[in-house]
Amino acid sequence: MQHIKSEQIYQLEKRYRTSLINSLIGYRALNLLGTSSRDGISNLCIISSVFHLGANPPLIGMVIRPEREHNDTLRNIRSTGQYTLNNVLPDWYKQAHQTSASYPSGVSEFDTCHFKKHYLKDFKAPFVAASNIRTGLELREMIELEVNGTTIVIGEILHILTEDSLIGPDGTIDHGKAETITVAGLDTYYLPKAVGKLAYAKPGVEPHLSGTNIKPNAEQ
Amino acid sequence: MQHIKSEQIYQLEKRYRTSLINSLIGYRALNLLGTSSRDGISNLCIISSVFHLGANPPLIGMVIRPEREHNDTLRNIRSTGQYTLNNVLPDWYKQAHQTSASYPSGVSEFDTCHFKKHYLKDFKAPFVAASNIRTGLELREMIELEVNGTTIVIGEILHILTEDSLIGPDGTIDHGKAETITVAGLDTYYLPKAVGKLAYAKPGVEPHLSGTNIKPNAEQ
Repeated sequence: MQHIKSEQIYQLEKRYRTSLINSLIGYRALNLLGTSSRDGISNLCIISSVFHLGANPPLIGMVIRPEREHNDTLRNIRSTGQYTLNNVLPDWYKQAHQTSASYPSGVSEFDTCHFKKHYLKDFKAPFVAASNIRTGLELREMIELEVNGTTIVIGEILHILTEDSLIGPDGTIDHGKAETITVAGLDTYYLPKAVGKLAYAKPGVEPHLSGTNIKPNAEQ
Repeated sequence: MQHIKSEQIYQLEKRYRTSLINSLIGYRALNLLGTSSRDGISNLCIISSVFHLGANPPLIGMVIRPEREHNDTLRNIRSTGQYTLNNVLPDWYKQAHQTSASYPSGVSEFDTCHFKKHYLKDFKAPFVAASNIRTGLELREMIELEVNGTTIVIGEILHILTEDSLIGPDGTIDHGKAETITVAGLDTYYLPKAVGKLAYAKPGVEPHLSGTNIKPNAEQ
């Protein structure tokens, strides 16, 4: 058993600590975040700090760090108020990772990392043409965190672009079928396999697979 | 191609919309959140809205909804200032899902869903004994979001409990080896398989697997 305490965490070598802390929470929602500047220069960066905030209104949150390439992203979101999230697929996950490189401001990662843009009429931010689950969002709130200088960006979903075959009968999008990639830590990419879809949990009813009938307190 | 626009999202049947919006961002960090009330009644609930906030100081954020079982959780975090996050494993992911059932206040999901507690000296919140990646946190900040009544809870990592064999040479925790489960949407559980660990991305260097040598601008 390994027990690492607060004071030891602070003493760890910087990159080691970054890898350790980044990998603690488990698998993370992995997306390409697309924006455009006011004068039309597009920007794309991989992001793994996106979280579900609520379905009504439909809101998504994400954490943006102050450094490097994200400066363009944050500036673009501030100035245009719009951005896109696009899932990452196995055939080009390495290209997606490459968008995290520190390209100079003004260089579009769409071009340099070989991603084709897809635009919607009356929506300023570019989508990734090669993704099969895409969301177009409008900025609702930005929260600057004093505790570490990061920014929480909250947006409302204006557009969902996906394939008919990826939406299940109950509305759940099938990321297994879509072949969406996930990440743990900073750089280790994974492709998940479905284990089971469970029914809505109720007190006194054993947990069971969705679509199976089970009596209260019956054996699983 | 399916294009769902904002006005259509608002017209969707409530449960369908909840499933759709919850599943948009992809795979999510899945954890059991352990707390204890001031008078020692433990509480456990499954949570998939945890996000990495920063490594220095080591911070983790999570979204807590105002309804149902999470009331106990939020009240416990407010009153004791401490909580734990524990990864979910294949053998008992159904029990973990069951903690989302609406048990009456005062019922411990540790007992009713058959989880053994693990305590550390001088730390109030219980860990899940069966998990192999566990974090003990102390509350740093709570942000009430007016936009939808949820609360963002920010905590600093005081304790990491895991196995030696799960920490890689660079500090990254190996969730593949740990067999950590992930979730997409509300109820579909997945077990990821590693695709590749990539090297730190640099402009002008093709993306490549970590540990392989590659010259600038060489073929992948």
